Amino acid sequence: MDTALDIVTIGETMLRLSPPPGVRITQANEFDVHVGGAESNVAAVASQLGCQTGWISKLPASPLGRRITTALQSYDVELDIIWDHDDDGRVGTYYFEPGGKPRGDTVQYDRAGSSVTTLTTAEISLEMIKSASICYVSGITPALSETLQTTVETVLQIAQSAGTKTAFDLNYRSKLWNTTMAKNAYQSLLPDVDILIGAERDVNTCLDRSADPESIVRDLASTFNLETVILTRGKNGVVALSNDTVFEQPVYDAKTIDAVGTGDAFVGGFLTQKLNDGHNGTTCSSIEHALATGAATAALKRTIKGDIAAITPAEVAAVRDTDTTEGISR
Amino acid sequence: MDTALDIVTIGETMLRLSPPPGVRITQANEFDVHVGGAESNVAAVASQLGCQTGWISKLPASPLGRRITTALQSYDVELDIIWDHDDDGRVGTYYFEPGGKPRGDTVQYDRAGSSVTTLTTAEISLEMIKSASICYVSGITPALSETLQTTVETVLQIAQSAGTKTAFDLNYRSKLWNTTMAKNAYQSLLPDVDILIGAERDVNTCLDRSADPESIVRDLASTFNLETVILTRGKNGVVALSNDTVFEQPVYDAKTIDAVGTGDAFVGGFLTQKLNDGHNGTTCSSIEHALATGAATAALKRTIKGDIAAITPAEVAAVRDTDTTEGISR
Amino acid sequence: MDTALDIVTIGETMLRLSPPPGVRITQANEFDVHVGGAESNVAAVASQLGCQTGWISKLPASPLGRRITTALQSYDVELDIIWDHDDDGRVGTYYFEPGGKPRGDTVQYDRAGSSVTTLTTAEISLEMIKSASICYVSGITPALSETLQTTVETVLQIAQSAGTKTAFDLNYRSKLWNTTMAKNAYQSLLPDVDILIGAERDVNTCLDRSADPESIVRDLASTFNLETVILTRGKNGVVALSNDTVFEQPVYDAKTIDAVGTGDAFVGGFLTQKLNDGHNGTTCSSIEHALATGAATAALKRTIKGDIAAITPAEVAAVRDTDTTEGISR
Amino acid sequence: MDTALDIVTIGETMLRLSPPPGVRITQANEFDVHVGGAESNVAAVASQLGCQTGWISKLPASPLGRRITTALQSYDVELDIIWDHDDDGRVGTYYFEPGGKPRGDTVQYDRAGSSVTTLTTAEISLEMIKSASICYVSGITPALSETLQTTVETVLQIAQSAGTKTAFDLNYRSKLWNTTMAKNAYQSLLPDVDILIGAERDVNTCLDRSADPESIVRDLASTFNLETVILTRGKNGVVALSNDTVFEQPVYDAKTIDAVGTGDAFVGGFLTQKLNDGHNGTTCSSIEHALATGAATAALKRTIKGDIAAITPAEVAAVRDTDTTEGISR
Amino acid sequence: MDTALDIVTIGETMLRLSPPPGVRITQANEFDVHVGGAESNVAAVASQLGCQTGWISKLPASPLGRRITTALQSYDVELDIIWDHDDDGRVGTYYFEPGGKPRGDTVQYDRAGSSVTTLTTAEISLEMIKSASICYVSGITPALSETLQTTVETVLQIAQSAGTKTAFDLNYRSKLWNTTMAKNAYQSLLPDVDILIGAERDVNTCLDRSADPESIVRDLASTFNLETVILTRGKNGVVALSNDTVFEQPVYDAKTIDAVGTGDAFVGGFLTQKLNDGHNGTTCSSIEHALATGAATAALKRTIKGDIAAITPAEVAAVRDTDTTEGISR
Amino acid sequence: MDTALDIVTIGETMLRLSPPPGVRITQANEFDVHVGGAESNVAAVASQLGCQTGWISKLPASPLGRRITTALQSYDVELDIIWDHDDDGRVGTYYFEPGGKPRGDTVQYDRAGSSVTTLTTAEISLEMIKSASICYVSGITPALSETLQTTVETVLQIAQSAGTKTAFDLNYRSKLWNTTMAKNAYQSLLPDVDILIGAERDVNTCLDRSADPESIVRDLASTFNLETVILTRGKNGVVALSNDTVFEQPVYDAKTIDAVGTGDAFVGGFLTQKLNDGHNGTTCSSIEHALATGAATAALKRTIKGDIAAITPAEVAAVRDTDTTEGISR
Repeated sequence: MDTALDIVTIGETMLRLSPPPGVRITQANEFDVHVGGAESNVAAVASQLGCQTGWISKLPASPLGRRITTALQSYDVELDIIWDHDDDGRVGTYYFEPGGKPRGDTVQYDRAGSSVTTLTTAEISLEMIKSASICYVSGITPALSETLQTTVETVLQIAQSAGTKTAFDLNYRSKLWNTTMAKNAYQSLLPDVDILIGAERDVNTCLDRSADPESIVRDLASTFNLETVILTRGKNGVVALSNDTVFEQPVYDAKTIDAVGTGDAFVGGFLTQKLNDGHNGTTCSSIEHALATGAATAALKRTIKGDIAAITPAEVAAVRDTDTTEGISR
Repeated sequence: MDTALDIVTIGETMLRLSPPPGVRITQANEFDVHVGGAESNVAAVASQLGCQTGWISKLPASPLGRRITTALQSYDVELDIIWDHDDDGRVGTYYFEPGGKPRGDTVQYDRAGSSVTTLTTAEISLEMIKSASICYVSGITPALSETLQTTVETVLQIAQSAGTKTAFDLNYRSKLWNTTMAKNAYQSLLPDVDILIGAERDVNTCLDRSADPESIVRDLASTFNLETVILTRGKNGVVALSNDTVFEQPVYDAKTIDAVGTGDAFVGGFLTQKLNDGHNGTTCSSIEHALATGAATAALKRTIKGDIAAITPAEVAAVRDTDTTEGISR
Repeated sequence: MDTALDIVTIGETMLRLSPPPGVRITQANEFDVHVGGAESNVAAVASQLGCQTGWISKLPASPLGRRITTALQSYDVELDIIWDHDDDGRVGTYYFEPGGKPRGDTVQYDRAGSSVTTLTTAEISLEMIKSASICYVSGITPALSETLQTTVETVLQIAQSAGTKTAFDLNYRSKLWNTTMAKNAYQSLLPDVDILIGAERDVNTCLDRSADPESIVRDLASTFNLETVILTRGKNGVVALSNDTVFEQPVYDAKTIDAVGTGDAFVGGFLTQKLNDGHNGTTCSSIEHALATGAATAALKRTIKGDIAAITPAEVAAVRDTDTTEGISR
Repeated sequence: MDTALDIVTIGETMLRLSPPPGVRITQANEFDVHVGGAESNVAAVASQLGCQTGWISKLPASPLGRRITTALQSYDVELDIIWDHDDDGRVGTYYFEPGGKPRGDTVQYDRAGSSVTTLTTAEISLEMIKSASICYVSGITPALSETLQTTVETVLQIAQSAGTKTAFDLNYRSKLWNTTMAKNAYQSLLPDVDILIGAERDVNTCLDRSADPESIVRDLASTFNLETVILTRGKNGVVALSNDTVFEQPVYDAKTIDAVGTGDAFVGGFLTQKLNDGHNGTTCSSIEHALATGAATAALKRTIKGDIAAITPAEVAAVRDTDTTEGISR
Repeated sequence: MDTALDIVTIGETMLRLSPPPGVRITQANEFDVHVGGAESNVAAVASQLGCQTGWISKLPASPLGRRITTALQSYDVELDIIWDHDDDGRVGTYYFEPGGKPRGDTVQYDRAGSSVTTLTTAEISLEMIKSASICYVSGITPALSETLQTTVETVLQIAQSAGTKTAFDLNYRSKLWNTTMAKNAYQSLLPDVDILIGAERDVNTCLDRSADPESIVRDLASTFNLETVILTRGKNGVVALSNDTVFEQPVYDAKTIDAVGTGDAFVGGFLTQKLNDGHNGTTCSSIEHALATGAATAALKRTIKGDIAAITPAEVAAVRDTDTTEGISR
Repeated sequence: MDTALDIVTIGETMLRLSPPPGVRITQANEFDVHVGGAESNVAAVASQLGCQTGWISKLPASPLGRRITTALQSYDVELDIIWDHDDDGRVGTYYFEPGGKPRGDTVQYDRAGSSVTTLTTAEISLEMIKSASICYVSGITPALSETLQTTVETVLQIAQSAGTKTAFDLNYRSKLWNTTMAKNAYQSLLPDVDILIGAERDVNTCLDRSADPESIVRDLASTFNLETVILTRGKNGVVALSNDTVFEQPVYDAKTIDAVGTGDAFVGGFLTQKLNDGHNGTTCSSIEHALATGAATAALKRTIKGDIAAITPAEVAAVRDTDTTEGISR
């Protein structure tokens, strides 16, 4: 790795196993295999949209660990892997059962004690972080272990000190910790964050903000001195504040085949476009462009199986810039 | 089998072979294999919801016969199988072709002369029936052969005499007999029935009732001296009469992947909840609870491939007791 | 081939390779294999609906060429294949990626230089054409090569001279030629056409007609001296003119699994019914029947994977003549 | 059907359902679908090798019946199907479970009462039989019902009277009848047979011949006045007598993926080559060529899934005429 | 559970995930799902061969836990499951990659901290153990945790005191502990064992015996006061000692599709036959019959995918009592 | 690309489509998708064994082009792709039909006019070539077009001038050119080659050498001034000459699942080990080590589906350094 990355990420990537639609895990005779994690999803999406991206993690030196690197390399994500040679090293695993009304999709984690939970700052390439334009982490990573919470805190500080913008997505996971623990962690991390992404529900629950969207983003920005705050509101789209201006971005209509990773696709699209526009010395309006890019990427993700949106810049632009086509192009 | 069962059932279970969605039987290169029959569907559903259930039938002593017992045992249904060692013994088979507007789902039966058609009362364990709380049969069973018609009649009489409640679902099948034959059979069976379930269309066609739902259930209850009458009305939900009170239960919204077995899932859920409440000395309002449980189970069934709803009590309760969740729980 | 065919067709049939729904070509590990081409789709559909049909083409003498004849023979289409023994002979191939809003279905062609592009009139069985009732070609065939453009022109002239009705579907393909080229070709072919089918968009773009549908069909009929003109208008159904009378046919509602070949199914259904009615000396109203048959066949096609509608006359009649059934017939 | 066929066949074709290798029927969640029957296997193989072939049978007018015609048409076999519109009409079905030492392959029939069992001479096209060069039936057909036994007898007589050579393969099936019944049937059929094919074991058991191969074929030829007798001896190859001369043909080595239909492939290859050579006024040595062709076709069959050998004349010639190639041709 | 079981077992059952043959885990896009564990494999095999069998274990109250009970119930194994409601509860998982020379099959465990590792004697149904004829445990169970080592020790003592024969298979797993730990555990368990099964290699490594087979079994029997000792020697078959007599049993030839569970199939077959013969008051020679039954069951297992041999008594008898058939039975 | 590569390669990589074993292309309903080309196979194998490797090529800017880069990136091969934006740009495709005695595996190419055939020296990164340790090309590349023949010639010259060792594998393909054309090309390329790999058959046919192996390698080395010559002799292993010493390397026994890419795996293993040893200043004996490494890699390849051996250094070492293990490691 000799070039400075556009976006560096750090976190856990899991093996995802899922039965076919309509088949319960209790009856399943085969599982589809995918690979996913908030940070690597963002890195893979941004890489396809033209960024140089990296992912830092710890994996067991095993076929399952290599299953994950195989997948991420295929998206041309630069990897800094600490290989765990301990016999107890393991990859986090989750079982995804696609539902459908009145059953929702369900997720069954088997991730406790995965190799990444012991990852320390000392093990990773700080140069990769310091030289990057943006350093992205999700709120899942500090939830995985105290060690990782410390690591994330240190990484964000180092990044910010080095002039790398820091981006953080709350991503509260009730199966990993409770809201009190999350709140404490978020509050010690947010001072080192430049760009905050948070689902309205997580902001309500873990950051105790429950006003109208615009008030929330203004409040968060001023409390934590954030450059950019993005409040994601499900079907109601996104409300964002950047440099004191508030923006709204509706969602693009999509036929959902697989909703996992939609938020990460949004972040990957948003950050890429933000960087692109920044490169061209854009004004405030570039945020609108970046939000639309994120929303378009997220809509495309929903049509694609697996955690990672396999897409092209042209496809994203087509959703963002034009009306959706009916029919088949031929 | 040493314990008294909650629900004992008797009938035919078939092999179901189906091409993938969008593929016609005439072009199919592979068939999915499922196992289904009204009575065993009810038994399997009720077993998962906490009942001790049993299924009585006759099967050829062949891999295909054992394919069926393998499936039902996996749901912990107690089996009383009369093994047919005759070379001509066979399992009923049906080919299910999932359609979609304007093609409906279609069913192609190849069930004539299956082993169960020769099942007599002398062959089966009457103790299992007499000691059970409920004995359930569908109207498909007497339609399969004259022998079975006699068997069902005798079984219902024996059950009722022994204090076992009898439950009967009309389940008229035009591919097995005509309405006149069905009407005659129903009329000789209904005097031995306590709980009647019938689709509005079948009640119209085979029992010559075509008034408003409430009048129909009142009329049927008084004519045949029924404890409970449940009129299932498709998308319009269910109208039930129990102890002179009429109840209505709407359907829960569901994204249908496989509609086969929806009615059986309703019956399984209804009977289980009825028994549970009965155990606690519940009042009339328990019928409402049982109807809601049946409707919730039926809605879940629609999201699951195969004839049998693979579900848990908690999943049924979640549909019944709460608003359906959007999003993924993780 | 000793009997006169009802419908003879001439054109290219391709191998279609498609990843499973939700999987991108860039990630795909398996492709479904189908076989499709406008003309053979029409022939296969009409054959199943009771016509004697034929397809004339040129294919490499290779397993891939035989993959195509295997498929078409299975629909009992009479074949007149010129086998290309040249090492460079190839089958046209296309990769179909099913999408879903906001991604549309996409088609990636790899068809340049396929064996059929060198097909000349001298190579084919003119007797098959002259003795047929209808000769059908789509506008894709002349777009494939100059040789084929000449061949199509000659074939239509020979057919018309021999009393064979000629049917032509514009089927403009922007990936094969541009509107100017298409316009020139269409204008030299249309004088030899009796029955014209055209999508409204293609008529706008390539025949420069953009009035209201009725005016367009009247204008086209008089300009090119056409017996029948059918303007297909997507969700808005079809407007047709036959013997100076204008007809409208709405689309039948359908749950789309695979939209490819919908237009060809319409043509196959329409032409078959037109011929059937003609056999019985029907009057003008038979066109209404034929249009409804075409629309019903097209609706069924949408529920079936692959380019060819695998259907029966009874299924088409059920859609055309009755209300669509809810539920399962059993 | 206007042309005289080279080979006409009459018999039952079944649906074959088989679990994947290593999976038991009792556990199977999907079955591969194939189509097979001794006579149609022969017709399909011979068709691919260049003969005009036909198959006469009776099938239910159902998707399953059409599944069979779809398959046979794909091999360009001319069909004369009597469509059974009786609700009880059915296709014969068999479940094939591939084994492997010490389990053998096993076959589970579900074929009793299939539509073909009621096929009478009055229903079929005698012209098709009389005009053919060879009429082939296997010993399975008369074993299916008394009606079919009569039909086969009549057909063979009519064929022979019309100058059509008759070919008969004993194909004794212990699951259909016993050796006494078979012996009686064979003895009334053999006077009308010109070409007899029989496995050594069947000849031993049902025709009471147990001498050395040469004596057996001589004995059978003289007893039943046969033009050609072929004794198939498994791994020991084939011993044949034609016009008083005895020939031996060893088997070609093959890696077996699916042994079903090996014998039929032999017959298809043998009869085709016999006819071809006959067309050229060949001498006795042509039998050797035909036997080698049959053996090569049989060896290829073993490498192909399903009952029917999907092959080309060139592939058969390559096995027959040259040493088997190691490596990949590219 | 009201009846005394023939064989009760206690141990861990895992989810097994495996890529298709020829595909590496690092590239796999789908995994086949099977369920396996030494003790439940034995119970499932013996159940199919006619024993009443049970399996005691602890599983997470999750879909993955229920995936395991679904599988075992399908074989009619009586279950005594302690459901672990702890969020950290998990099923053991292993990834099986089928190889082929020069790669062997490989196994990647992810089983640390599975729910069963906390199973104590206090949690289980001692009545089930005391009333059984045989109590079987493998040496894998004590290797999983100290808690389980204590549990196994107590269970074997209780069983033996209650007159239940105890059977123990060394099953040394180098990925779970080292030879010193195993040796210590084995030595404290063996005094409570009646029937010992051990691979020659494990006996060498962990019990320090390396003489000729006969000496080894005699030495073990006298040292540990064992009723029966069975030394399994891979391709060299089995040497057993029972009541001072030594027996040899060669392996039956088999085409291996999946070798996992071969040893457990042997044990299941052996114990079942031993019990059956015991029921009939057999003499010493019954051991020979039991060994042959075990070897036949083991050979069949090799032809079947998954850890559990899906078989019938008749299939086992066919291998044991007759020469293997060539060809297809039909 | 900022680091000097160990091995840079240049050539075509194709999409490979293959039906399942036992299914003919003419009947196939699905194709497995793999990606393969001699040069990228070598690069992917060497990358996994620890080299920094690169692949230079030209691909259409399409999903199919990206399908290829996705695959190669997953093996961490550095790519220098010239994206062809021409509408006629295409990927080479080949259909691989796995056979089995007496059918061999067959390959059907559809590669004419693929984008890479227009690749010129001007388009590629010469720096990547000049800075590499080894530049590898196969004889397939110059066979694809005259343009490529010139490009390869120039590249080899530039490489050699820059001190990059050049490696060339004859890889004669009769479906691409004839022996005369190949001979001429080889003779103009060989003066620029340092390491020659050639199959004995290709050396016989295209380089007119037919003596004993040792004489051949000596003759070739002296004629073309080669540092290393490796003659691959199928089952007879390899004979190599390096610095005037001759070595022999037998093949390792392997159960072949997919033989495609075996030779490339050998080259990848050989070159990697050669480089590794070179790094440590090894003596002549390192060639023996490299040959054994190549042979071990080749043996492993045969057990893996697809053109590329997915392997680890440890797996290769295990085959090379130890006896193959029987049984399962667990």
